[in-house]
Amino acid sequence: MGKKRVRMVVAYDGTNYHGWQSQNNGDTIEKQLNNALSELLNEHIEVIGASRTDAGVHALGNIAVFDTESTLPADKISYALNQRLPEDIRIQNSGEVPLDWHPRKCDSRKTYEYRIYYAKFPMPVKRLYSHFTYREMDTELMREAAAYLVGEHDFKSFCRSGAQTQSTVRTIYSAEVERQEAEVVIRICGNGFLYNMVRIIAGTLIEIGQGRLEPAEMKNILEACSREAAGPTAPACGLTLIKYEWY
Amino acid sequence: MGKKRVRMVVAYDGTNYHGWQSQNNGDTIEKQLNNALSELLNEHIEVIGASRTDAGVHALGNIAVFDTESTLPADKISYALNQRLPEDIRIQNSGEVPLDWHPRKCDSRKTYEYRIYYAKFPMPVKRLYSHFTYREMDTELMREAAAYLVGEHDFKSFCRSGAQTQSTVRTIYSAEVERQEAEVVIRICGNGFLYNMVRIIAGTLIEIGQGRLEPAEMKNILEACSREAAGPTAPACGLTLIKYEWY
Repeated sequence: MGKKRVRMVVAYDGTNYHGWQSQNNGDTIEKQLNNALSELLNEHIEVIGASRTDAGVHALGNIAVFDTESTLPADKISYALNQRLPEDIRIQNSGEVPLDWHPRKCDSRKTYEYRIYYAKFPMPVKRLYSHFTYREMDTELMREAAAYLVGEHDFKSFCRSGAQTQSTVRTIYSAEVERQEAEVVIRICGNGFLYNMVRIIAGTLIEIGQGRLEPAEMKNILEACSREAAGPTAPACGLTLIKYEWY
Repeated sequence: MGKKRVRMVVAYDGTNYHGWQSQNNGDTIEKQLNNALSELLNEHIEVIGASRTDAGVHALGNIAVFDTESTLPADKISYALNQRLPEDIRIQNSGEVPLDWHPRKCDSRKTYEYRIYYAKFPMPVKRLYSHFTYREMDTELMREAAAYLVGEHDFKSFCRSGAQTQSTVRTIYSAEVERQEAEVVIRICGNGFLYNMVRIIAGTLIEIGQGRLEPAEMKNILEACSREAAGPTAPACGLTLIKYEWY
């Protein structure tokens, strides 16, 4: 028996976590996975995550890989691990991958959804997964603005200032805005996202939808390559990593 | 100034409450409303609720009324009260009604939704508002069975045994079963519901959808007028009071 690499699809409700990545203080998804896996497999495990989501951000399918000497079949790990995880984290499936497969070093597509609930007052059952606003939004204006984001661009204006990144160029494959009853859903698919990128895009689209910025301003914001040009960072609760695909 | 009666539409996430009605121990929606209103209006307030929902059941629009001597306009009470309520309870609107208007003594229609999430493993962001099952359901069979419920019937088989009720006859106006992606949604509208009625109906429909009972059994269950004839009581988390209409 040798070492094997296991890939897991990890879903979580980020409400009660300080994000994905382990920090000295504060509970994280990564810490929960490392602890539960180390106990289950009786060896020291450290997972590598695909998306290091912020505090409060949710995921239907983030990706984590780890190496193990265990003889437990890779596809059975999901069942055993879910028994040991808190109910706000659930492995959706697990399987073996080649030892050199790395979730951040492969061609991939990530899809994020940002949900905004519009009404006179907040709706309690929506509060954990949608950002509330009492100002109406024009989704047509938001859609027009979102179209400027599609393609390969320098997204420096949509990156939290101070973030250390080699390149701020990313490709967005699609950026859709859809009304679902009282919610507006922004769905963005790209080959990668900068720190806070989707939340800053959402904050900017809300400004546009509520008439405080023209849709065509999106082009100028992109070209400015400066965080100050864009709108505010929308709250974490509205954001969910929906899907992670790789090739 | 005299006394006036105020009607409020109350939305809540029932996860952290022991239901609507005040109990000696345990936090309830009613207790939160009574405390916040009494503080706000500086007089002793006791609300009367339309639906005394169980522990863990949610509402988009339950109804509560109360009488007050306050000069605060009835339609402004929603704003002031929401400042004092926990974020899992929110008044959706408030307004004055005649002093003899009573939410349980008027002709009304209540609509409940019961959500079931089907997958190999639970999805954390669904866990508070949907009942999870890993067994597939045939919604066509469920729809066929639900049709037997429509009309005026004695629903004694769908009432928690031991519940004290004068009559177990109710009218169901519609009973729909719909698939929404990975969820099955049961939506039932009626002039009133017995204790645990929607949850027992949901539990019975799940039995039918998963092939453990024939759809036509629904007719026999109704006719049996015995709680033992029906399926299990489905968990509270999947249930939401969607709408309360009155005439």
